[in-house]
Amino acid sequence: MKIGFIGLGAMGRGMATRLIEAGHEVHVWNRSPRPVEELAQRGAHRLESPQGAFAGDAAVTMLADDDAVRAAILGSDALRAANKKLVHIVMSTVSVAFARELEKVHADAGIAYVSAPVMGRPEVAAAGKLNILAAGDAASIERVQPLFDLIGQKTWPLGAEPHQANVAKLAMNFLLASAIEATAEATALVERYKVDPAKLTEVMTATLFAAPAYAIYSKLILEGEFKPGFKLTLGLKDVRLALAAGEAAGVPLPFASVVRDNLVDAIGHGDADKDWSAVSLVARRRAGLPSKTGGR
Amino acid sequence: MKIGFIGLGAMGRGMATRLIEAGHEVHVWNRSPRPVEELAQRGAHRLESPQGAFAGDAAVTMLADDDAVRAAILGSDALRAANKKLVHIVMSTVSVAFARELEKVHADAGIAYVSAPVMGRPEVAAAGKLNILAAGDAASIERVQPLFDLIGQKTWPLGAEPHQANVAKLAMNFLLASAIEATAEATALVERYKVDPAKLTEVMTATLFAAPAYAIYSKLILEGEFKPGFKLTLGLKDVRLALAAGEAAGVPLPFASVVRDNLVDAIGHGDADKDWSAVSLVARRRAGLPSKTGGR
Amino acid sequence: MKIGFIGLGAMGRGMATRLIEAGHEVHVWNRSPRPVEELAQRGAHRLESPQGAFAGDAAVTMLADDDAVRAAILGSDALRAANKKLVHIVMSTVSVAFARELEKVHADAGIAYVSAPVMGRPEVAAAGKLNILAAGDAASIERVQPLFDLIGQKTWPLGAEPHQANVAKLAMNFLLASAIEATAEATALVERYKVDPAKLTEVMTATLFAAPAYAIYSKLILEGEFKPGFKLTLGLKDVRLALAAGEAAGVPLPFASVVRDNLVDAIGHGDADKDWSAVSLVARRRAGLPSKTGGR
Amino acid sequence: MKIGFIGLGAMGRGMATRLIEAGHEVHVWNRSPRPVEELAQRGAHRLESPQGAFAGDAAVTMLADDDAVRAAILGSDALRAANKKLVHIVMSTVSVAFARELEKVHADAGIAYVSAPVMGRPEVAAAGKLNILAAGDAASIERVQPLFDLIGQKTWPLGAEPHQANVAKLAMNFLLASAIEATAEATALVERYKVDPAKLTEVMTATLFAAPAYAIYSKLILEGEFKPGFKLTLGLKDVRLALAAGEAAGVPLPFASVVRDNLVDAIGHGDADKDWSAVSLVARRRAGLPSKTGGR
Repeated sequence: MKIGFIGLGAMGRGMATRLIEAGHEVHVWNRSPRPVEELAQRGAHRLESPQGAFAGDAAVTMLADDDAVRAAILGSDALRAANKKLVHIVMSTVSVAFARELEKVHADAGIAYVSAPVMGRPEVAAAGKLNILAAGDAASIERVQPLFDLIGQKTWPLGAEPHQANVAKLAMNFLLASAIEATAEATALVERYKVDPAKLTEVMTATLFAAPAYAIYSKLILEGEFKPGFKLTLGLKDVRLALAAGEAAGVPLPFASVVRDNLVDAIGHGDADKDWSAVSLVARRRAGLPSKTGGR
Repeated sequence: MKIGFIGLGAMGRGMATRLIEAGHEVHVWNRSPRPVEELAQRGAHRLESPQGAFAGDAAVTMLADDDAVRAAILGSDALRAANKKLVHIVMSTVSVAFARELEKVHADAGIAYVSAPVMGRPEVAAAGKLNILAAGDAASIERVQPLFDLIGQKTWPLGAEPHQANVAKLAMNFLLASAIEATAEATALVERYKVDPAKLTEVMTATLFAAPAYAIYSKLILEGEFKPGFKLTLGLKDVRLALAAGEAAGVPLPFASVVRDNLVDAIGHGDADKDWSAVSLVARRRAGLPSKTGGR
Repeated sequence: MKIGFIGLGAMGRGMATRLIEAGHEVHVWNRSPRPVEELAQRGAHRLESPQGAFAGDAAVTMLADDDAVRAAILGSDALRAANKKLVHIVMSTVSVAFARELEKVHADAGIAYVSAPVMGRPEVAAAGKLNILAAGDAASIERVQPLFDLIGQKTWPLGAEPHQANVAKLAMNFLLASAIEATAEATALVERYKVDPAKLTEVMTATLFAAPAYAIYSKLILEGEFKPGFKLTLGLKDVRLALAAGEAAGVPLPFASVVRDNLVDAIGHGDADKDWSAVSLVARRRAGLPSKTGGR
Repeated sequence: MKIGFIGLGAMGRGMATRLIEAGHEVHVWNRSPRPVEELAQRGAHRLESPQGAFAGDAAVTMLADDDAVRAAILGSDALRAANKKLVHIVMSTVSVAFARELEKVHADAGIAYVSAPVMGRPEVAAAGKLNILAAGDAASIERVQPLFDLIGQKTWPLGAEPHQANVAKLAMNFLLASAIEATAEATALVERYKVDPAKLTEVMTATLFAAPAYAIYSKLILEGEFKPGFKLTLGLKDVRLALAAGEAAGVPLPFASVVRDNLVDAIGHGDADKDWSAVSLVARRRAGLPSKTGGR
């Protein structure tokens, strides 16, 4: 296939490389030039502007947020000038409101639009092992399924309206944030009773909570380093988007509100650039515990 | 060993049976007589009163709550009259404050006291596959370890002070309650966007949340039957005990507060006797969704 | 009238003095002897035990909490031995559950019981200017109204069942706690934007919030001294009782839950013995502000 | 003075009329023409576009929200073409972020900018009795003080940076929202105990909470009609702006989060267009009470 690829951040680079290595003709664009050079050396074609990405069979957009997608895609006549047979796959974690706006814009332009945010970190993307949450009309998803199969270990179809995939992605990140907060509160509680929090997380992750979410984040919480990872400000962005999605549909999310307050607290205390599991420092601080387990 | 066993509820029956079948001399007491008869037919010796349970090498107390333990153990001179070499194992989920009171009472009476609340449902108890959270002095735990090995698949030592095991148990139940609430909010959110909540839970339990806690409770939430299981009022009791433990140690638990409010809401709406995952109905009701997934 | 008076704390002393000065025959009891001596010099009669307080036309109980009332009143045969024409007025802030227990105990003993918790500080009590929240059967209230008129500026009848007055009292203290928390959050917000919080409270108390609750507490919050006053631990007790009253009736109180968490946070940070408006330090700390306005 | 006036909604009409009646030369613009005609009959001059408002000594903007102000003011070269001696007074309740953007835009254009959101309903505006929260450089405020004196009963200076007035306005509305929520929870609690909620609010508003905020809103809550007033969706907008202001400055606002969740709940239950005190229906519904006091 001839594929346009917009956005070569840590995630996008790995994804585009997978497509190139599988023999596809991949045309890439990025705001800063270095990743474009890097990909060109692996066989990608350089694009001068995002518009060029819409000339082939599929275009993949993997930019940071609403604003970045808006600037790259809606700021030009990219969609109106696009190949009418192309499928545009937006894999960014954008707001539900913006996903709905994209639905309208694509319908107006007569271009197929699939929303397909992903779960997984950069190394998972590079290994082609992402989980892909996909929504859009079934025929369009089917056409790009071969691309998904190169990028992800599994595609999860979530509905015919693209924004439904975004709701599901935000729900997943909300669940992660809640698992982090719950673990933070639980470990703060036991530590105040001089129970080694590592023992609690050992029980958790060996029994009822034997899941990657708890294994990964309880380890980060115990270590107390909080190297990103997933930056706390991005975590706050996603929790805010989940709250906004709830607001638009009349769904209160009291757990999300607690997490939001704590993320704000963490930012106010200088932890904005740490991994979002640093929100656990709020529970520690409120419990009168030192910022690291065991006061080390 | 000669063992006294107090409390033959759904959990206690299975545990005592395991001890009998392993060849121990088990003397049993229960407030209502029927379970005593049942166990006697399997080889247990009948006790007329709880006091009699303290004459052997170990006594196991497996009663419902603080009040039941207090009535059975502290209302008599059971401890003062006990065999001084006995180890008393309290396996009930009691409050931290009461566990500390029990520490003092046992110290005054010169009797070894091990706190060992368990994780697992009655069928798990009957199969000897419980997880045992144990705290107390190491020598005492070692002496009763053979009993734990009959009842549980694993014993998790959590500290030298018995109440530490109770803190850990309450922390585990708090984590479960938080997982239920987070799942309830997440599924309500996606359902309002017409995403099938079963698809979200499928993604969850196949990826980041591939853990028994989420598998069990997302299923109950989707089915919407809420047959107990673990009664909602007992869940509220445990969340209240977690909050009280936090209060006594200066640890705010905002997630527990949200869950508490929602459990109270559920009770006010007639769901007191359902499984505690029925707290998910609160999120559905607040989101304007019918009480069952898909409005069935 | 012949009146027994139990409990000569800061509040009780002033109230009993009012009754004596109006010419009533007042028999007093207190756990510690000094206040008894002080009142005796003003004309009170000494009682050796609480039981003696139940021989006249009315008995007033003004003790600290459930436990103190239970120890003084229910630990003896005071009620059964009481003059059957006596009205027992319990003016303490007790739990709703305990007020209901008192209803039953008095009914069993055939003694009239009026619950009449008060609003106002010790100097208000001494001046006879309390607000009295009264519940009980109308005839009994009418009989003791002359006493209420000496102690309070106004009696507010709230229902025929005594515990209803306790619910109302807890609701009032919950409202106060909420006003403190809201003021704390609002002043922390504006101060982070370098708006002088004293200007905000000036606007508040000159316009929409021109009420004693806000005048008193915004001043305490601005000054940052937090001399009690009403001790933070007592505030936590009352918020806990409001939550328990809600729990028993199926009423979630999310604001009370937030305040509870913050009072626990404050206690964990060493502010247990300050005035309960010191809970405002939690909002300041979470906002990254120094513990005193303007960083003084 | 020669004054431009942009925005003739319910509030703006009364304010502009006051200026005209005092003899000022007032040029008015509004998106819909009818209010312009109405004001013209009272002596106002018609403007064809918002730009025309910036030719005199002062311009007043009284539009609904960020978007309306942006469209009217920033969508044209109004500011760059303005009389350099003019003071632009923005009296709308806008976001803090937008107020900061306006600071920059005005500085770039060399135009004095005063932010002056108001407290009071349309009838209060018409009577010239508003409370004006003003921020900006002192000299500019002084120049427009004669206008403020016609519109308001009092001007409250809050700082030299215009956005500080917006923070204060949002703080005031947050305090109002909190007073509504606290009253809703308190009345739900007592009503579940069959205490007449009208009696509680009588005690409140005669004693510690004798303030307009509580008088107004407890009446609306008791009546249960919720005719706007201040629409619930506008209330949600302002609470969201308060949360956003907190977020930008690292200030968690847990009470605002609870209120936000409840406003979302109310909207989901069909109460979007009622007065924002209809958020009290959430507390009633969660407590299992009928939607009107006494079940009428």
